[in-house]
Amino acid sequence: MIKMYGFWRSAASFRVRIALNLKGLAYEETMVDIDAGEQYVPAYKAINPQSAVPSVLVDDGPPLTQSLAILEYLEEVHPQPALLPADARGRARVRSLALLFAADHHPLIVPRVRRYLTEQLKVDDDRRSAWIRHWFREGLAQGEAKLTNDPATGAFCHGDTPGLADLCLISQVMGAKNFKVEIGDLPTVNRIAEACLAIDAFARAQPLRQRGAPASH
Amino acid sequence: MIKMYGFWRSAASFRVRIALNLKGLAYEETMVDIDAGEQYVPAYKAINPQSAVPSVLVDDGPPLTQSLAILEYLEEVHPQPALLPADARGRARVRSLALLFAADHHPLIVPRVRRYLTEQLKVDDDRRSAWIRHWFREGLAQGEAKLTNDPATGAFCHGDTPGLADLCLISQVMGAKNFKVEIGDLPTVNRIAEACLAIDAFARAQPLRQRGAPASH
Repeated sequence: MIKMYGFWRSAASFRVRIALNLKGLAYEETMVDIDAGEQYVPAYKAINPQSAVPSVLVDDGPPLTQSLAILEYLEEVHPQPALLPADARGRARVRSLALLFAADHHPLIVPRVRRYLTEQLKVDDDRRSAWIRHWFREGLAQGEAKLTNDPATGAFCHGDTPGLADLCLISQVMGAKNFKVEIGDLPTVNRIAEACLAIDAFARAQPLRQRGAPASH
Repeated sequence: MIKMYGFWRSAASFRVRIALNLKGLAYEETMVDIDAGEQYVPAYKAINPQSAVPSVLVDDGPPLTQSLAILEYLEEVHPQPALLPADARGRARVRSLALLFAADHHPLIVPRVRRYLTEQLKVDDDRRSAWIRHWFREGLAQGEAKLTNDPATGAFCHGDTPGLADLCLISQVMGAKNFKVEIGDLPTVNRIAEACLAIDAFARAQPLRQRGAPASH
């Protein structure tokens, strides 16, 4: 049994949840309430010294951390269905897209950064929201630029089956929607996001369908 | 022949340069002057729509982008010497450390973010420097917490040979030094950084030894 520590709103937890669902792996998720600061309690820091979610425990091994590293691990140990293409260049393209979303842009809007803006830089709520919306939009607009007119793009980011890049795209799209970011003008991103949510493994991994999420939004 | 578009100060270019050196791959680097905005000229945007460095061209294929995706590609196509351990759990640990440095923290201090702080949030130079120093230190302090007392840590981040996590650690350490971040109290990080710089493949990849770098610092 796989045990995951996550949080309903966490984009990184969302990504790992989709992969577990796609690969048909049973797991049990314990929610770490990031809003309440539960990631800083000693018991959780012993699991993840970085105080971040998700952390994944498989059998008796040490905790796996960092969503992209966890996804690569799941792909190696449970290769089917594949989240990465078979060829090295295809894998490089998919990983590049995944990193564009999950590494270049997502880290800019996480709680610890939002807190620094408010507490250290005394940024007011409006300008803090503008910051969050700016980086969500930037990441997705850059994704659009990379995806559109590239023959490797199919029904999903790479061909016609969902993979690692799609997990990262959808987690950013859902975050953007949560913050009411205008992305209607990004047709490829929106088309792929819709294709993702039509798949049950993605749909039931969604933030708003997890324990602790607000009942309506 | 491998052709790389980089920039002397770029931490991501530094990481790829080390890997090319370690694997003994000949390459030619064209410098894109990020300070002068050369990443935004149409000729470069055609190579990398994200206007980021590095981009790597191998044979006639499309450009490879995102340093971690490029490093995984190089590892797959030129597996020796290995930058990732042989076991899946070891690879997960190394990737998690690499992402801690290169994904969670490095993107917070890149030029486009510094520009947003100045131009949109009207953050003055002192507070902008404090921001940069804060995130460099945070990343390295979290790295220290993960590395110290972990039996998998050796002379390098994972065992006694340099790998993917070390490339990301050293690029953050050199950036931190450039911004005069206090990291003297992080013994494991400093010990590993020293071990890295004692290796010629790391030393000659250093930012200050590239074309365009200031002659003394």
